Amino acid sequence: MITSAQNTQVKNVIKLNQKAKARREQGLFIAEGRKMFLEAPDDWIEKVYVAESLLDDEEIMQKAGRFSWDAVENSVFRQMSDTQTPQGVLTVLRQPSYQLEDLLKQEAPLLMVLEDLQDPGNAGTIIRTGEGAGIGGVFLTKTCVDITNPKVIRATMGSIYRIPFFYVEDVVLLKQKLQNCGIRFFAAHLQGKNAYDRESYQEGTAFLIGNEGKGLTDRAADAADCLIRIPMCGHVESLNAAMAGGILMYEAARQRRN
Amino acid sequence: MITSAQNTQVKNVIKLNQKAKARREQGLFIAEGRKMFLEAPDDWIEKVYVAESLLDDEEIMQKAGRFSWDAVENSVFRQMSDTQTPQGVLTVLRQPSYQLEDLLKQEAPLLMVLEDLQDPGNAGTIIRTGEGAGIGGVFLTKTCVDITNPKVIRATMGSIYRIPFFYVEDVVLLKQKLQNCGIRFFAAHLQGKNAYDRESYQEGTAFLIGNEGKGLTDRAADAADCLIRIPMCGHVESLNAAMAGGILMYEAARQRRN
Repeated sequence: MITSAQNTQVKNVIKLNQKAKARREQGLFIAEGRKMFLEAPDDWIEKVYVAESLLDDEEIMQKAGRFSWDAVENSVFRQMSDTQTPQGVLTVLRQPSYQLEDLLKQEAPLLMVLEDLQDPGNAGTIIRTGEGAGIGGVFLTKTCVDITNPKVIRATMGSIYRIPFFYVEDVVLLKQKLQNCGIRFFAAHLQGKNAYDRESYQEGTAFLIGNEGKGLTDRAADAADCLIRIPMCGHVESLNAAMAGGILMYEAARQRRN
Repeated sequence: MITSAQNTQVKNVIKLNQKAKARREQGLFIAEGRKMFLEAPDDWIEKVYVAESLLDDEEIMQKAGRFSWDAVENSVFRQMSDTQTPQGVLTVLRQPSYQLEDLLKQEAPLLMVLEDLQDPGNAGTIIRTGEGAGIGGVFLTKTCVDITNPKVIRATMGSIYRIPFFYVEDVVLLKQKLQNCGIRFFAAHLQGKNAYDRESYQEGTAFLIGNEGKGLTDRAADAADCLIRIPMCGHVESLNAAMAGGILMYEAARQRRN
């Protein structure tokens, strides 16, 4: 049982929660909570920490027993945790390493391309909603929030384990690569000519979503095959980035179902 | 210029930011930031606080000058603020008091009904997205997060000023009241028979959204005229509550446009 917050493992978990650089250097990240542990793929799991209070939880202990795990005193566990009400289980995971091809396995792929998205909740919600809508993967520019940020991981509600992601330098280069695969790039943009539901997403489709405050760069918007507009009533100037992404992905899913 | 955090006005702003009870008793709430100040309806504004650093901002000062306002030393302003990077203007507003009829002004109203929704970001995002989709108003059960919570206000991005809201004791009683007006109640529910895009929302429509963790109560789901399902691929068990609401509202808006 780990009983001190000075324990090197405890200190490293806190570092992995707080520092993108530590996650990158160690190739690890943290997922907190019961659902995130139970859904974690076996071959991603590096280490499991279980709070004292959860040691009699059969479901947790049965899975934990198959991996390297440690018990942690409740008060120490609270210090390791990034959440206000820790659920008592914390998993250290190895970062997956996807190839471009992993995102293109679908017949006419539905893809998300995030440019300079900063809010971890938005990134995680796009991944979660994207799994629901049936996307093949998420591309992110390197200026986006780190996808292994604990707030992103939490907002994915487990979808991080199932949706491949891939970092790119630049949206324009990605576009050039993917257009050979017959994938059309649609950018949600205030200057879009057509309402989003007037275009067809039956073929290979990538939706471009930009930064929360600034929107897409001109470079990225220019690279899109088509600018689309989400009609807005009232005085609304823009939708939340994750919401805009979700509405587009579910419109594509609707068209593909019908 | 207010120069001390012990100033009674400063203390009261902090209280209004933190305590729903204080907001209720005083009938006031706080909106932070420039957009929230500039869009605030004149007759809601009780008092404006401007940080020292913003005193030479013409747009802000022009509007502030028409109301009771005070300058606040930057360090004191940071203490008044509920945000990490305050924008230098904070508005104390009188709570609006809507009648049921204010929400039913549209021809075939599109309405949201929130039951026990707890997350302030979700509530605010539903109001913002709702304005974009053209809803007539939002009903909330009294168990929901306080709509004047500063995190809700911020997430509305100003839509709080334009979307009427109304608290109800119970969803079932509301349903009975509204069915006479020809409004159909649709509940997003895992047991929904039809996919959401298979129903028509051209007539008066209310979408019921439940608690983030527990979903709708059985009582509320039973009261709905129709349970609808948002199809989900992969292993997704549910969507984020605001996302589910947004997808439904924008499907209704799509049908009403086309």
